[in-house]
Amino acid sequence: MSNPLRLGIAGLGTVGVGVVKIIRQKSKLLAERSGRKIEISAVSARSRDKDRGVNLKPYAWEDDPVVLARRDDIDVFVELMGGSDGPAKAATEAAIAAGKDVVTANKAMLALHGQQLADAAEKAGHIIRFEAAVAGGIPVVKTLTEGLAGNEITRVMGVMNGTCNFILTRMQDAGLSYAEVFEEARALGYLEADPTLDVGGIDAGHKLALLAAIAFGTRVDFAGMELEGIERITIEDIHQAADMGYRVKLLGVAQMSGRGLEQRMSPVLVPASSPLGQLENAMNMVVLEGDNVGQIVLRGAGAGQGPTASAVLSDIIDIARGIRVPTFGQPAHTLSRSSPARTATPAPYYLRMELQDKPGALARIAAVLGESGISINRMRQYGHDDTTAPVLIVTHKTTRDALDVAIAGFAATGVLAADPVALRIESV
Amino acid sequence: MSNPLRLGIAGLGTVGVGVVKIIRQKSKLLAERSGRKIEISAVSARSRDKDRGVNLKPYAWEDDPVVLARRDDIDVFVELMGGSDGPAKAATEAAIAAGKDVVTANKAMLALHGQQLADAAEKAGHIIRFEAAVAGGIPVVKTLTEGLAGNEITRVMGVMNGTCNFILTRMQDAGLSYAEVFEEARALGYLEADPTLDVGGIDAGHKLALLAAIAFGTRVDFAGMELEGIERITIEDIHQAADMGYRVKLLGVAQMSGRGLEQRMSPVLVPASSPLGQLENAMNMVVLEGDNVGQIVLRGAGAGQGPTASAVLSDIIDIARGIRVPTFGQPAHTLSRSSPARTATPAPYYLRMELQDKPGALARIAAVLGESGISINRMRQYGHDDTTAPVLIVTHKTTRDALDVAIAGFAATGVLAADPVALRIESV
Repeated sequence: MSNPLRLGIAGLGTVGVGVVKIIRQKSKLLAERSGRKIEISAVSARSRDKDRGVNLKPYAWEDDPVVLARRDDIDVFVELMGGSDGPAKAATEAAIAAGKDVVTANKAMLALHGQQLADAAEKAGHIIRFEAAVAGGIPVVKTLTEGLAGNEITRVMGVMNGTCNFILTRMQDAGLSYAEVFEEARALGYLEADPTLDVGGIDAGHKLALLAAIAFGTRVDFAGMELEGIERITIEDIHQAADMGYRVKLLGVAQMSGRGLEQRMSPVLVPASSPLGQLENAMNMVVLEGDNVGQIVLRGAGAGQGPTASAVLSDIIDIARGIRVPTFGQPAHTLSRSSPARTATPAPYYLRMELQDKPGALARIAAVLGESGISINRMRQYGHDDTTAPVLIVTHKTTRDALDVAIAGFAATGVLAADPVALRIESV
Repeated sequence: MSNPLRLGIAGLGTVGVGVVKIIRQKSKLLAERSGRKIEISAVSARSRDKDRGVNLKPYAWEDDPVVLARRDDIDVFVELMGGSDGPAKAATEAAIAAGKDVVTANKAMLALHGQQLADAAEKAGHIIRFEAAVAGGIPVVKTLTEGLAGNEITRVMGVMNGTCNFILTRMQDAGLSYAEVFEEARALGYLEADPTLDVGGIDAGHKLALLAAIAFGTRVDFAGMELEGIERITIEDIHQAADMGYRVKLLGVAQMSGRGLEQRMSPVLVPASSPLGQLENAMNMVVLEGDNVGQIVLRGAGAGQGPTASAVLSDIIDIARGIRVPTFGQPAHTLSRSSPARTATPAPYYLRMELQDKPGALARIAAVLGESGISINRMRQYGHDDTTAPVLIVTHKTTRDALDVAIAGFAATGVLAADPVALRIESV
């Protein structure tokens, strides 16, 4: 058996403590599977005194994660602090400079700086692994990077923010408003300190950007993503969608079109009978499509101590076993610069509008759609209060560009009482 | 970039031709991902003259796969001939003896001889990879061996024979008998030359035995599996199950109990609303449960040229990348000898019987169940012909042992017109 693999763990929140516990409890199993012992040399966190329910005495303590990252007695720097910049990035850079491999669960840091960090690590002959950064316990990074490496990936889709999926399914099941369920989610501790990271689609968008880089061999481009949150979804949208056999999901889609890389994270309608449509509560699901393999669906817990620690451990065991695949599946310097593309793939859209209750309002909206070359599949005006009339329209297949022309046209009619909500009906 | 990885491919059926095509069409992509070129040096199949729709001229030809396996100009022997013994096994042994790595899609060979082959390969410092042998395009071997390596696996389940799932879902959707759909499947070319391999559960059982070895660190033990096919499932079983909110699936389950390793491949009832219950047609699904990760569900095509070739390619790319995990996740000589255990985990059971239409027949059956300590959840006697009466019973949770005592007791009553059908209601 080779030398032990020595870890320095920075960040002792839920996930960090989970990783420490598993390494303590399963040392024999991990050694059998890895072919060598896995040991913790040192740990770091903000407060040394906090009781974390696990014995940290056997490990050296560092107040400063940067100092931890440089210690001579560690081979792998395990970054579980979070935050796109600040200490997490500084310590990761220090680890790379000091010749360590890095395992991280930090989607924000990699979505914003992954290209630069992977470049630096690979130049130094080291690797960054990030299974825990995407979809928690689901081994999707490995599946995409290794399991489907014999495919050209044609599309990646995913429901990768459990909080949003909880909110949307809870609205549907309980018939509650977005605001009510948002407060429930907050009370349950499901929301980040800045809830926009969740409900604005940013957290899930970070994850999608990382998968897209692997899938299409392109540089990580979070800035090029079309992002839209779930804040404007109403219980009416959910009921209307259900009536038509759909579910509303915050879905990420990445695909290559003739114009470049399409990446979008937005609320969409998917068939209620599809695996994505049936995904309930805080579960995550990733759908990977390859030219040879067809469609592969992966489902599991996207967060939580056990699942996330499971993903961190799989990266650590890979390194112990000598598996050294580049961060994004091919050397970072060979990733191509894709031009970010506005969504070009046509789809039907669901439109909800509040119209001022004046004669001819609906006719003017319909006329604008016609002028934009968009044909209407169904239209419905439903129960309304005194001054405005809610209208629902489902279009036939159209492009996002045509739709944007129409939406600008709606505004020019002067009959809108509020900005329209437009949800793509994604073919999954 | 390192030296090319040179392949010898034995077997040019659907899968073999698929692998050749992908390597020809995607050489640049594969090289980018692997860090080296992947080349075919030589091929072998039964008939040299057959037109396979792919240009084989660039490759050396061997009539004898054993000679191919020993060629100096190959690094990896790719075995795609099939058959548990005969040429496939002889050539695999020759490859190992000649110091080659092996990639195979051969579930039967590995289920019966995998222990011995892996031992031999690992003693020689070589590896056997078999992603394509289990669930076609779904990268389940990699997920279990690597992606979930930080878990103690608690249970593995799978629908891994697409033909059986096609037959069962087609019976349900079209209301056709087993015999009718069996003939449809034969006409569609879905059945093996010996259909018992499919409908008898043997093919799926081979796959389960391989996953169980990885999951529980035990020697491959196909002989220790409880095997039951779908031949006795009637359209009535399927309708009755549907009435109660279940679907009938040929499901493999492996789990460790106090008594040893439980492995069973048999038709069972699963909730219609579960991912397994919703699996339609020839799709495959594997459910992996780990102590940290919880439940991971994988869904995809379990057969066909593209999906199976995708799995073969992932193994080849792994080897090109220098990934050298032992065949079953830990060295074969360290796998434990588990005692095969009869199913001990209690469950409710569905029982269907034909009783002779005599007074008191049903009472005697009920009495036998009571004597065996099995309580009845529901019982139903339905429309019957002149001489026999079909009876359906769903029990409360009981053990397989108690059920077997009861079934022996039924026989002793003399009121059975045919052997009863007993289907476990699996908690998934």
